Amino acid sequence: MEKKFLKRNIISINDFTKEEILFLMDFSKQFEGFRKPILSGKILAACFYEPSTRTKLSFESAMYQLGGNVTGFDAGSSSSAAKGESVSDTAIMMEGYSDVMVIRHPLEGTARVAGESADIPVINGGDGANQHPTQTFLDLYTILKTKKTLNGLKIGFIGDLKYGRTVHSLAEALSLFDNTLYFISPESLKMPNAILSHLSAKNKIYFETNDLYDYANELDVLYVTRIQKERFFDPLEYEKVKNAYVIDKKIITHVKPDMKILHPLPRVNEIHTSLDSTDQAEYFQQSKNGVTVRKALLSLVLGIYP
Amino acid sequence: MEKKFLKRNIISINDFTKEEILFLMDFSKQFEGFRKPILSGKILAACFYEPSTRTKLSFESAMYQLGGNVTGFDAGSSSSAAKGESVSDTAIMMEGYSDVMVIRHPLEGTARVAGESADIPVINGGDGANQHPTQTFLDLYTILKTKKTLNGLKIGFIGDLKYGRTVHSLAEALSLFDNTLYFISPESLKMPNAILSHLSAKNKIYFETNDLYDYANELDVLYVTRIQKERFFDPLEYEKVKNAYVIDKKIITHVKPDMKILHPLPRVNEIHTSLDSTDQAEYFQQSKNGVTVRKALLSLVLGIYP
Amino acid sequence: MEKKFLKRNIISINDFTKEEILFLMDFSKQFEGFRKPILSGKILAACFYEPSTRTKLSFESAMYQLGGNVTGFDAGSSSSAAKGESVSDTAIMMEGYSDVMVIRHPLEGTARVAGESADIPVINGGDGANQHPTQTFLDLYTILKTKKTLNGLKIGFIGDLKYGRTVHSLAEALSLFDNTLYFISPESLKMPNAILSHLSAKNKIYFETNDLYDYANELDVLYVTRIQKERFFDPLEYEKVKNAYVIDKKIITHVKPDMKILHPLPRVNEIHTSLDSTDQAEYFQQSKNGVTVRKALLSLVLGIYP
Repeated sequence: MEKKFLKRNIISINDFTKEEILFLMDFSKQFEGFRKPILSGKILAACFYEPSTRTKLSFESAMYQLGGNVTGFDAGSSSSAAKGESVSDTAIMMEGYSDVMVIRHPLEGTARVAGESADIPVINGGDGANQHPTQTFLDLYTILKTKKTLNGLKIGFIGDLKYGRTVHSLAEALSLFDNTLYFISPESLKMPNAILSHLSAKNKIYFETNDLYDYANELDVLYVTRIQKERFFDPLEYEKVKNAYVIDKKIITHVKPDMKILHPLPRVNEIHTSLDSTDQAEYFQQSKNGVTVRKALLSLVLGIYP
Repeated sequence: MEKKFLKRNIISINDFTKEEILFLMDFSKQFEGFRKPILSGKILAACFYEPSTRTKLSFESAMYQLGGNVTGFDAGSSSSAAKGESVSDTAIMMEGYSDVMVIRHPLEGTARVAGESADIPVINGGDGANQHPTQTFLDLYTILKTKKTLNGLKIGFIGDLKYGRTVHSLAEALSLFDNTLYFISPESLKMPNAILSHLSAKNKIYFETNDLYDYANELDVLYVTRIQKERFFDPLEYEKVKNAYVIDKKIITHVKPDMKILHPLPRVNEIHTSLDSTDQAEYFQQSKNGVTVRKALLSLVLGIYP
Repeated sequence: MEKKFLKRNIISINDFTKEEILFLMDFSKQFEGFRKPILSGKILAACFYEPSTRTKLSFESAMYQLGGNVTGFDAGSSSSAAKGESVSDTAIMMEGYSDVMVIRHPLEGTARVAGESADIPVINGGDGANQHPTQTFLDLYTILKTKKTLNGLKIGFIGDLKYGRTVHSLAEALSLFDNTLYFISPESLKMPNAILSHLSAKNKIYFETNDLYDYANELDVLYVTRIQKERFFDPLEYEKVKNAYVIDKKIITHVKPDMKILHPLPRVNEIHTSLDSTDQAEYFQQSKNGVTVRKALLSLVLGIYP
């Protein structure tokens, strides 16, 4: 199975079979706390056309923990792209400077273009509203790590389900398994029909509500995302709903003791800091799992194993 | 004594006893020119919420010279903080990505917050007008290295003594020892009363003047800081005093042959370049000492010794 | 001959003799695909006062491939220079933080100032309209690699020959050898008289034209540069000439099968992507050669050989 990842571009979660995902989850385990210079002499090109501190630092840390190094550029005027260079040309350039590339870009489809241009494996670090596969891998890994399964779970998603790339990809990925999904959002930020139809077509069970407490006591996992004011045409509408989607310590008495709260971070105020020290808070560990899963992916696409 | 530094946050010079400071000075000596990969596999997170090239590069160089690596972010839009993340959350995130963190932030108290949030040691790289302890350590180290003692010295401070974080911390640190201090500044930029009272309470001897030549011939050390035009309400007042606080080669005939001139750098014009080649010029060496002291600190807080 | 490069500043192509250039070309060959940590523990300071992704990443990659590390700063507010520090002071500071320095600066002569200030070797990564010697070295290396000689070639330059630093330096360097040069440009962007006089004085043969097809079938190498709209006072004049200097697949039927197209990159539209897969396209390989030549230079100035 390792061979299926060798020199592979990691563009969309939809490019992976259930078996491949499960293999990656299992393969990742050995990278927990693993620090050996197996990627010594290897170079990652981190090409960030828009900022994403967490993604960038997580990849950097993964590379450094495995003894590799990182070149690349950040958003802003300092890239050749500012001189009008195409993503394709930049990708070919990177091929001469590095062994693997991660690209973050505001436009959908850019990562795939880079992947098709460069002879080195390209990892999508987020392309607009489209895909951010390593985020989905680490979300799945976090669920599996804490619940010991990816099946038979009751998983809630709360917040902005309309525009949240993260929740779309995770819901799609979870549809490869058998779980019950709960979509909790204001009316105007509901999960898109395209995804709901997709779930129905695969006979997956899901519920929609605008009230967290309709199902809070049943959930095994609650995946929280931020509701952004700028998504609302009517500021009054935002004022009306915003507090209903802030999770605070009040929730603890309504949920199972082993329910886990996830969040892709950064959070602003949608999870109150009073929850940070509870058993339910899994979001910081989730962030740390990102380094583990990214170490596994770098190892796999480069074909250098522990 | 090493144990007292293990996993310790380095937030304020005032958190350290005289014995600890002297130990650090002594411990630092072995890092002069020392380059061995004792921190191989270790990662420093350099979190710069505002620019400080010298501090950042000095820490980077220290880490690289010891075989470690550096992740982190620079001021500007590329940090998650731009999305509204708290320093506390960022610090917890860094804990998953690194082994030690240096933070530079425009707001006082931020470094302590980061230190209390993260499970890794946090080093204050300057928090507003408050503290910049590694600068003070390297200043002390430079005095000790060149004068062979931290006692019985006559040490002048010249320039902006009112707003200069560096001179405040160094004066406080020197008050742990027995020295005579000379504060040379325009009336409007005098050393704050709080610090003068503190010195008096500890029976330390100091003099104030607005004329360098009142005491120039007695000094063992002259610590120069820049006078910034924007500190003056009245531009005429600035024009009046600015030249009185520019040090040039004229000073050499008025000072002891082994008097040493220090400056935290960068300088603009407050030390004339004609002084650079004199025996008194110690400021470039002082800058280099920063790498030595920071290597020592990284070694100590991580508990990995040469 | 290695000794002639030891601790040497690499400021201008004109500082090098024909023999030194040929030695560097030959010395570079062994760095093709070479990755061994011979520069382990060594630090490059990359001081970029203006952006140049390609130059920066190429040096970073070279350093990492040889096991070294990179510190430094990028253009913008994050450098001490923003606080008014002189290039000379910054160079002396870098001396304490690194073993070799590459500097990119918008002002002519800056690299030489840095080199005279610092005790470490300084490499010019481009100083305004003046020099960018490592680009010229990699251009020569690319010609030599693909044509097996630097003599007896027919080499065309097309595009903006008036303002193009790259073509000026390369033409000067080629005048050390015996080649025939063809300068193809609109009237208003002709090669400067100073360079033409220089060629004449050395009895070098060159031709000028505004039509690529006057000589296309004779060329061994065609070096393409971009024509920038902002160089024209009259936008109509730009519209008139721009298409005449875009190279596309049409050229293939008019040139020798082993003719090679070079370009310093990034390109915008002056070479059509349909050419990328032809045998003539050498520009991507040229970019990759930059890492090879820079590895050789770093090895030479630091005096650490494979």
